[in-house]
Amino acid sequence: MGALAQQTIELPSWAFGNSGTRFKVFAQEGVPRDPFEKVADAAQVHRYTGVAPRVSLHIPWDKTEDYAKLSAHAAEQGVTIGAINSNLFQDDDYMLGSLTHPDARVRAKAVAHHLECIDVMRATGSTDLKIWLPDGLNYPGQDNLRARQDRLAEGLAEVYAGLDPEHRIILEYKFFEPAFYSMDVPDWGTSLLHCLALGEQAMVVLDTGHHAPGTNIEFIVAQLLRAGRLGAFDFNSRFYADDDLMVGSADPFQLFRIMHEIVSSGALAPDSGVNFMLDQCHNIEPKIPGQIRSVMNVQEATAKALLVDADALHAAQQSGDVLGANGLLMDAYNTDVRPLLAELRESQGLDADPMRAYGASGYAEKIKAERVGGAQAGWGA
Amino acid sequence: MGALAQQTIELPSWAFGNSGTRFKVFAQEGVPRDPFEKVADAAQVHRYTGVAPRVSLHIPWDKTEDYAKLSAHAAEQGVTIGAINSNLFQDDDYMLGSLTHPDARVRAKAVAHHLECIDVMRATGSTDLKIWLPDGLNYPGQDNLRARQDRLAEGLAEVYAGLDPEHRIILEYKFFEPAFYSMDVPDWGTSLLHCLALGEQAMVVLDTGHHAPGTNIEFIVAQLLRAGRLGAFDFNSRFYADDDLMVGSADPFQLFRIMHEIVSSGALAPDSGVNFMLDQCHNIEPKIPGQIRSVMNVQEATAKALLVDADALHAAQQSGDVLGANGLLMDAYNTDVRPLLAELRESQGLDADPMRAYGASGYAEKIKAERVGGAQAGWGA
Amino acid sequence: MGALAQQTIELPSWAFGNSGTRFKVFAQEGVPRDPFEKVADAAQVHRYTGVAPRVSLHIPWDKTEDYAKLSAHAAEQGVTIGAINSNLFQDDDYMLGSLTHPDARVRAKAVAHHLECIDVMRATGSTDLKIWLPDGLNYPGQDNLRARQDRLAEGLAEVYAGLDPEHRIILEYKFFEPAFYSMDVPDWGTSLLHCLALGEQAMVVLDTGHHAPGTNIEFIVAQLLRAGRLGAFDFNSRFYADDDLMVGSADPFQLFRIMHEIVSSGALAPDSGVNFMLDQCHNIEPKIPGQIRSVMNVQEATAKALLVDADALHAAQQSGDVLGANGLLMDAYNTDVRPLLAELRESQGLDADPMRAYGASGYAEKIKAERVGGAQAGWGA
Amino acid sequence: MGALAQQTIELPSWAFGNSGTRFKVFAQEGVPRDPFEKVADAAQVHRYTGVAPRVSLHIPWDKTEDYAKLSAHAAEQGVTIGAINSNLFQDDDYMLGSLTHPDARVRAKAVAHHLECIDVMRATGSTDLKIWLPDGLNYPGQDNLRARQDRLAEGLAEVYAGLDPEHRIILEYKFFEPAFYSMDVPDWGTSLLHCLALGEQAMVVLDTGHHAPGTNIEFIVAQLLRAGRLGAFDFNSRFYADDDLMVGSADPFQLFRIMHEIVSSGALAPDSGVNFMLDQCHNIEPKIPGQIRSVMNVQEATAKALLVDADALHAAQQSGDVLGANGLLMDAYNTDVRPLLAELRESQGLDADPMRAYGASGYAEKIKAERVGGAQAGWGA
Repeated sequence: MGALAQQTIELPSWAFGNSGTRFKVFAQEGVPRDPFEKVADAAQVHRYTGVAPRVSLHIPWDKTEDYAKLSAHAAEQGVTIGAINSNLFQDDDYMLGSLTHPDARVRAKAVAHHLECIDVMRATGSTDLKIWLPDGLNYPGQDNLRARQDRLAEGLAEVYAGLDPEHRIILEYKFFEPAFYSMDVPDWGTSLLHCLALGEQAMVVLDTGHHAPGTNIEFIVAQLLRAGRLGAFDFNSRFYADDDLMVGSADPFQLFRIMHEIVSSGALAPDSGVNFMLDQCHNIEPKIPGQIRSVMNVQEATAKALLVDADALHAAQQSGDVLGANGLLMDAYNTDVRPLLAELRESQGLDADPMRAYGASGYAEKIKAERVGGAQAGWGA
Repeated sequence: MGALAQQTIELPSWAFGNSGTRFKVFAQEGVPRDPFEKVADAAQVHRYTGVAPRVSLHIPWDKTEDYAKLSAHAAEQGVTIGAINSNLFQDDDYMLGSLTHPDARVRAKAVAHHLECIDVMRATGSTDLKIWLPDGLNYPGQDNLRARQDRLAEGLAEVYAGLDPEHRIILEYKFFEPAFYSMDVPDWGTSLLHCLALGEQAMVVLDTGHHAPGTNIEFIVAQLLRAGRLGAFDFNSRFYADDDLMVGSADPFQLFRIMHEIVSSGALAPDSGVNFMLDQCHNIEPKIPGQIRSVMNVQEATAKALLVDADALHAAQQSGDVLGANGLLMDAYNTDVRPLLAELRESQGLDADPMRAYGASGYAEKIKAERVGGAQAGWGA
Repeated sequence: MGALAQQTIELPSWAFGNSGTRFKVFAQEGVPRDPFEKVADAAQVHRYTGVAPRVSLHIPWDKTEDYAKLSAHAAEQGVTIGAINSNLFQDDDYMLGSLTHPDARVRAKAVAHHLECIDVMRATGSTDLKIWLPDGLNYPGQDNLRARQDRLAEGLAEVYAGLDPEHRIILEYKFFEPAFYSMDVPDWGTSLLHCLALGEQAMVVLDTGHHAPGTNIEFIVAQLLRAGRLGAFDFNSRFYADDDLMVGSADPFQLFRIMHEIVSSGALAPDSGVNFMLDQCHNIEPKIPGQIRSVMNVQEATAKALLVDADALHAAQQSGDVLGANGLLMDAYNTDVRPLLAELRESQGLDADPMRAYGASGYAEKIKAERVGGAQAGWGA
Repeated sequence: MGALAQQTIELPSWAFGNSGTRFKVFAQEGVPRDPFEKVADAAQVHRYTGVAPRVSLHIPWDKTEDYAKLSAHAAEQGVTIGAINSNLFQDDDYMLGSLTHPDARVRAKAVAHHLECIDVMRATGSTDLKIWLPDGLNYPGQDNLRARQDRLAEGLAEVYAGLDPEHRIILEYKFFEPAFYSMDVPDWGTSLLHCLALGEQAMVVLDTGHHAPGTNIEFIVAQLLRAGRLGAFDFNSRFYADDDLMVGSADPFQLFRIMHEIVSSGALAPDSGVNFMLDQCHNIEPKIPGQIRSVMNVQEATAKALLVDADALHAAQQSGDVLGANGLLMDAYNTDVRPLLAELRESQGLDADPMRAYGASGYAEKIKAERVGGAQAGWGA
């Protein structure tokens, strides 16, 4: 229970705004209109789960005049500011790329944006600069694949040079979308190569939704931990593409296997350097309960992973007992850990059932009533 | 050349408006502001290729007060109105479904929308009502999979009852998106089952981008032709998902194989009942040239398919000559048919090179200058 | 518990022989050398689980002089003969196809093989003729896709004409392999079309490993149940291809969702016409325990599906409560049903833990000692 | 034409033996019975194409008493011995792994096998030791993912230490199969990490059939070239899995894009360090013509890649002309290069049409007559 009690999960500010597909963004009542309201909503998730004490910001979506005020607001709500996310996809200049754009002017702009994000880190006390590169090509021949890697390496080096010693770049990869023919950072290998070139302060972000069909994600977790370069998770679920569904909702067994790699490598510990973050949208379900459920799903997978009998497993593996070793893993997975987690929450003064407690709190009704007028924050707002 | 000269390809009005991904829609100058301008742009494609004489409309995006006027406008430009596309994804009521929604009120609204579309068909002389059902589920358990099929069957029957004798319903299927866990019409089998239940005026639409990875699309073409239910193609290209790239740009060999099935089943003939349509977006490339290139790609694939030596192929197939039979197909594919098509165009009084001719026409510059102000048509506008 | 107690799962005789990949078949000691020993091994699975009373045969692998004797042997062991599986892939004549072969002589041979299988059905009391068609193409152009469907329809009709009134054809589909470019029955739509053409005694077999990546299998279950044509399951697991791993070992949540469709359509009942069969190999794990574990996995998924609160789920679905409906499904899934199943077994006079009980029985040691000499049954033996 | 004339393609000895799927290996008449006959067959491919002067061996399949004799035999036929392939999948000891096996004894055996392969390299003058690692897991929990990487690194280091200065290890990766849950070298990132740890004499092998669906292979080519670690190609085609079809037969446009990366990075040159090898089987088509066709497919793709107007392409890319840049690539691809290659062959004293020339040579009939008796070489023989 000690390990479970120490686990923390970071929430994305954008999960609380409206989101959707290219076909439609369905609006929800009570959605936040600014970063202060997003932080307040995120704090609700922490209030009922006790394990979500940080909120990632997205720049420029969460730009504000006074970051000290935002940090203070967060502190009042019991949370802190987490990773700062740059945005390279919503400026017209970035249609054909940002850090990889053929035009040096555009690349310089993208670098400058990151330096601005580092300033936000300084202003908020954040230590992680998260870079997801949407750059890529839609058509073969559209640009030179290799030259784009060179430009990317250059741009990242300029950003890296702007980091303070306690800062990290965490570099995400994504298999496809928004570019359809080729992404410039499509896989963990590419992200890792760039991190290795940059230096010790560069780490890979593994987004659970960003892989080709059939990819064994826990293998990548093991590989990145072995290389000492797993900087963070972006948790979410996918059935087919980057579906951004609630983590654990599509394949809870996979989430368990991922957490098993984490636990067996000792990477659950707060000082392991692995930041467990959610990165997902709630297109059709309510935002705050969607986040609460997601946090609980990660907790349940972690609790199951902690139940694995490591010694017995090691012995079965060493002796080549295929069914026995698999059975030991399944025994942990098949255990119902919800009572254990309820107990843990109660021991921390929390309600045993965060979903019910939040539902009973009246917060949803309150924000629907209060947040009328103004622009509801959407994806990109 | 006779068969080639007879082939026609229908263009989608929405290809001329702005489009994008959920991350960003990049605006292009000169984009049409209403259905009249869209039709005018589509007519440019026909003007330079000679094989694109119809334009599909999308309701409500192309709603207008006076459809007779729109039809007359089209006629002036040398084109006619093609299929009428309904829209079931942009109304807030449809968040959890339209024809499959648990609430009978919403289902009735979706049926009524189709009856309105049938009115547009009457007003424009269109004979095809194209239904793409975006309905589906994001989460297991969210709704009853089987009950949704029952509701869908009911709704389609009501729409079908509203058709005139010369009308058809053409029902599209799509593997995933915008629903992520389950689409209500995910595959050709589902679409065909509904068409069989409806009657002779219901046919399947095969969108080349709407399949699981590794699916053999020409097999489905053969299967639907054998069942007498291939109503139309929605042509486009995909590398990974429903990428809506220019047809033939991702896998030109696949497009050739599809056209080979069409040609060898005699389904290229104008009276075959197969409507060859484009359904694609141009997110980063200019719209009109993007459509011209796409039309040319279909033409080239068709020309190659017509070059296959059918008798020799049949003989090789019957004798079990694997390499010989494959070689005969490849011989046709490897032939450069561009000179042949240039010749065909010149024999029809067209420029041999439609891309160059359009580029030289000054039309792009003209619309950039003229179409300033007003709302540019976007996807959904 | 009543429903659970009635569930039966059929075992494949070939699961007890050696199997492997194209790279290597690893031999295991004690493997059966003839159908009698296979039946004996299958009976062990039934002995400890109580829910596996039938054994599928594969012809010619399980050919024997005296089927009455084999049936009697089965009865002595407490089991009966289940579906008869034809084999269309191990005769040299079938290199380019069997029922779809360009040569009428080969097609006639394949039809005759099925009539022989029907004789085995008569001799063993089996009522299901299971056809998995390995036919297909490796190269585009190799044969005519559509002509092969015509030949297949003809051949199936001849086989169908040979059925007795209580017999069924159950027709399996498979996405790929052993043909790589195109399978002749690649999907449920193709299988269903042939079944519809044949008549009421033809049903579809859904093999859980035979789909494209990302396919929603429970949707197909719902669709086939709705059409009244789900004849059987071939249960197994896949991570990427037709991996034939133990059912429930790759994605236990998917297995649960499948059983949820079964339960909510009332198709678990013994008279539903759905035959729950395993079709899987045990390449590296011991065979009998592998089958026991697989049977238990199906039972656990079924038990969880039976726990779903159907009324509450229906209410949540009707009211559009996305999180609530999903949560109800997950509540059942997250429940640990192993104690319940242990109790059920004990109430039936079985050991609570079939794996342990089999392990303690000494059967494994006994067959290793006894089955020395003779040819060990391999896949295809 | 100079670059084309210099290109060489290495042939695998095993392509001339029988091969198949796990379901069936179909035997062909005239198949070689020993490495000498395999080399003779490979030499036929070189004889008619002029670009296939090397033959890869596979140990132990091609083990022989006297390698000097085999080399001399090759020289007489006009070819030389190429890469030496180790085999880690056909020994019973390797059921649960070879270099990654939990048991140190098995790992030592696998290392020793490689040292034996290095001796074969010395005896034949080969400089490339090709390692494809079939190791992996079928079930979650079966073994420790991370520990297996450590064992692999150790074993590879021992093999690497045994290399002569002119030797290279070329390390292949494969997405899945024969292990189904997790391969120990599943992707280019893993292979590259091991190569980087080993040293300058370790390079990555890219097998075109070994990727997840949707993977952009030319991106990986560009990435490995940029890292200076692309050691070799294993060319073949896949529609779905590791189908081992003739290279260029499934997606000729992809092959062209791969060769475009090669050409534009200057990696076609004989001294580039990239070994262009075929690794494919001919299950249903005749072996020697299958290899000839494959070699021709690579040549055609290369010829097209050499036709790309690099300056114009660069200019279009720099100016952001999406359609123009893509069009330039397509212009090269759409050109029929067969006449050019026919001309090249004639200029080299070869027949313009290698398939026809081989067919007319009588070699196929000759080996069918001569190679009667003895064991035909199968996959693994």
